Amino acid sequence: MSKLTHIDGDGAAHMVDVSGKADTVREARAEGKITMAMETMEAIKANMLNKGDVLATARIAGIMAAKKTSDLMPLCHPLALSKVSVDFTFVDDGIRVETLARLTGKTGVEMEALTATSIALLTIYDMSKAVQKDMIISDIRLLSKTGGKSGEWWAK
Amino acid sequence: MSKLTHIDGDGAAHMVDVSGKADTVREARAEGKITMAMETMEAIKANMLNKGDVLATARIAGIMAAKKTSDLMPLCHPLALSKVSVDFTFVDDGIRVETLARLTGKTGVEMEALTATSIALLTIYDMSKAVQKDMIISDIRLLSKTGGKSGEWWAK
Amino acid sequence: MSKLTHIDGDGAAHMVDVSGKADTVREARAEGKITMAMETMEAIKANMLNKGDVLATARIAGIMAAKKTSDLMPLCHPLALSKVSVDFTFVDDGIRVETLARLTGKTGVEMEALTATSIALLTIYDMSKAVQKDMIISDIRLLSKTGGKSGEWWAK
Amino acid sequence: MSKLTHIDGDGAAHMVDVSGKADTVREARAEGKITMAMETMEAIKANMLNKGDVLATARIAGIMAAKKTSDLMPLCHPLALSKVSVDFTFVDDGIRVETLARLTGKTGVEMEALTATSIALLTIYDMSKAVQKDMIISDIRLLSKTGGKSGEWWAK
Amino acid sequence: MSKLTHIDGDGAAHMVDVSGKADTVREARAEGKITMAMETMEAIKANMLNKGDVLATARIAGIMAAKKTSDLMPLCHPLALSKVSVDFTFVDDGIRVETLARLTGKTGVEMEALTATSIALLTIYDMSKAVQKDMIISDIRLLSKTGGKSGEWWAK
Amino acid sequence: MSKLTHIDGDGAAHMVDVSGKADTVREARAEGKITMAMETMEAIKANMLNKGDVLATARIAGIMAAKKTSDLMPLCHPLALSKVSVDFTFVDDGIRVETLARLTGKTGVEMEALTATSIALLTIYDMSKAVQKDMIISDIRLLSKTGGKSGEWWAK
Repeated sequence: MSKLTHIDGDGAAHMVDVSGKADTVREARAEGKITMAMETMEAIKANMLNKGDVLATARIAGIMAAKKTSDLMPLCHPLALSKVSVDFTFVDDGIRVETLARLTGKTGVEMEALTATSIALLTIYDMSKAVQKDMIISDIRLLSKTGGKSGEWWAK
Repeated sequence: MSKLTHIDGDGAAHMVDVSGKADTVREARAEGKITMAMETMEAIKANMLNKGDVLATARIAGIMAAKKTSDLMPLCHPLALSKVSVDFTFVDDGIRVETLARLTGKTGVEMEALTATSIALLTIYDMSKAVQKDMIISDIRLLSKTGGKSGEWWAK
Repeated sequence: MSKLTHIDGDGAAHMVDVSGKADTVREARAEGKITMAMETMEAIKANMLNKGDVLATARIAGIMAAKKTSDLMPLCHPLALSKVSVDFTFVDDGIRVETLARLTGKTGVEMEALTATSIALLTIYDMSKAVQKDMIISDIRLLSKTGGKSGEWWAK
Repeated sequence: MSKLTHIDGDGAAHMVDVSGKADTVREARAEGKITMAMETMEAIKANMLNKGDVLATARIAGIMAAKKTSDLMPLCHPLALSKVSVDFTFVDDGIRVETLARLTGKTGVEMEALTATSIALLTIYDMSKAVQKDMIISDIRLLSKTGGKSGEWWAK
Repeated sequence: MSKLTHIDGDGAAHMVDVSGKADTVREARAEGKITMAMETMEAIKANMLNKGDVLATARIAGIMAAKKTSDLMPLCHPLALSKVSVDFTFVDDGIRVETLARLTGKTGVEMEALTATSIALLTIYDMSKAVQKDMIISDIRLLSKTGGKSGEWWAK
Repeated sequence: MSKLTHIDGDGAAHMVDVSGKADTVREARAEGKITMAMETMEAIKANMLNKGDVLATARIAGIMAAKKTSDLMPLCHPLALSKVSVDFTFVDDGIRVETLARLTGKTGVEMEALTATSIALLTIYDMSKAVQKDMIISDIRLLSKTGGKSGEWWAK
């Protein structure tokens, strides 16, 4: 038998049955980072002092992407997300994004938090690529997962 | 004036005018990586010997996501992609994905290649997360960009 | 603190947490109007006597748009709508649309009713614009909102 | 009064109210078939021995389409599917697909199972049409429906 | 080498390169049928005499589905369709649908015509299923394909 | 014969054939207004001084909606928009939005500009409705249309 729950006994992909699971409050947090040159960060910070649309656009893109997760991940269940947030922090060599997704439902929201992180970072890349093309997106990972039968999980 | 082309003179986001650009063949390649434990790689390799649906699903997810790029990135233009491919390689500590997007059109396809990479990696995470939750997605970057007025660009 | 619930304490947009709210039957009604020339109304009424596809198409567009609300409004929650209806009335100088959305869930459906109204009106515009381009869409507003903790609200 | 529940007393389409219905486990199974030449079947079977991406792609397409049912069928309710599976069997003159959809919710999932069947079959057509254009898709029908007030239904 | 163009030399799925193909007018026609009981046909015909929303809804669903083809078929190219039509004919034991899709572009529109056919038929099923559950959808096939390098093709 | 181009000779809806039209630069501008209380305007202006996410979110919603026009209007052609912008002006009793859509293609972009206007206004409503529910959206109309065989059109 496969350890991969999304694969049935014959090796075929399927959407796992969650109909027997309880509706509980579930939450996931994820993070990721985009590394960029000082010049690129300066351009984004200059925009922050003006209208700030670069990070506002990336935040909206992340939130909207969380809602599209089941349309992007073939085996994710459609979920009625009850909260999504996307936060940015300037670090030494780029921007760190941290996302949170919450749900009252039958399955976890890790993929929603991770998708919001990835798309927010890609949107920063998109809006800054005229200045710099060799930015790198990295360190995308789950930070925590709470709620549900399997209990809490925290990244080390 | 902003160096960020997606921001107008007032600091507001807009979709850049490409109506005056020529229809040429444009191509972009991107890559990324998911780091995982030996046990997780073994589970995926075992599936490869069986039906192989894990990587087939991730490949399809990446290709379909490339087609959704303008729906995910707020300021990307809708594009009639003429080719997308997604390839996987097992490396020492995980799986590397390389994607290619091609278009005959008025603007580049970097974001399409990068989106395919990101979503393919997230799908591998989704299908393997029952085995391991602390996988890390990293090194997502543009490898090359050809076609269009700005000429060729290759990652160092 | 902001009075705008979709904005957090730092002024950033987020999707508000509704996980603690009760699942109750919630309903919203909205209305709007498209003003047109007599000639345009006559063309639509002539179609009513034939197959009636103009208003049938606008009705379907409105119903389908209500289901897309959370994909259109960046901070709207995805909702499992339990009923949507779209009704048209010919008035002196155009067509009035009234919509109803209902849900058993954790948050209201005002935006779903308003989106159905707007898209139904735009569809009438689209199907009639070969006859008249200066039609005006106006008076889009919420008529009532019932269910949920904040109680009933009726437009004056 | 119309026997067609999706049509109101005036003959107009609407999305039926299910807000008063109970949340129960509901399930539907559907099937369909694509008839093809021996040469086409051989090409697909040869791929099965290699990576097997033809049927893996069709399976993923079917599962993802089930999740899009309410976006395709104008009057279907958006549903939080809890399970979807798509299975293929080679028969004498083609490939048979059988799908299953399950939900804990207020309305049945027949359309989700039928949509998964139809799109999986169309995807096989798409991937094989370079070999054969006159394949025929047929015998798409509901096999069973369980759960909900109206009770069980089984195809004869 | 595979005869299946959507599969590369390694057996993996990819979106075929059409960037070198010419922009020409391409057209495809498809058909399909839904078999139903006399009682169900009578209910639909009765609606035709009233507002006619059953077939109007199915027509709109078919047209909109044609536009979603590349979102449903994993390896279909996004296409800028220039025309879609969906026509219904009552036959002895059900309803026949015929669809037409046209494009000025680099690849054929067979899948667009077939998708419009399938979704129009499923919508008729959806709107009539309260009356009859054992309707059968069948005989979905390509009728003709014109334009492009491979020339014309007509079903026998 | 119908004057409504989206209706064929039998009164049925269809997507009009544009395959014979020339690819030219086409542009449309639209406007609309949301009327609100002084208190609501003050809350939005206070946010402008902070991060400004209210209008940034509405701007992004409008731009993204323009790209979804053919998915919302049943008979609109899918278009490869080359530019979209959304601008806001505070007026005495509310906020005015003006949008611009541009395309090199075979058909006009009036519906794209009007859809961007409508969804931007609805997003302002959504983000402000905790403060005021009786805001009214009105005066949505086409301002101008240029390019294409039918020539220029300007609102009086």
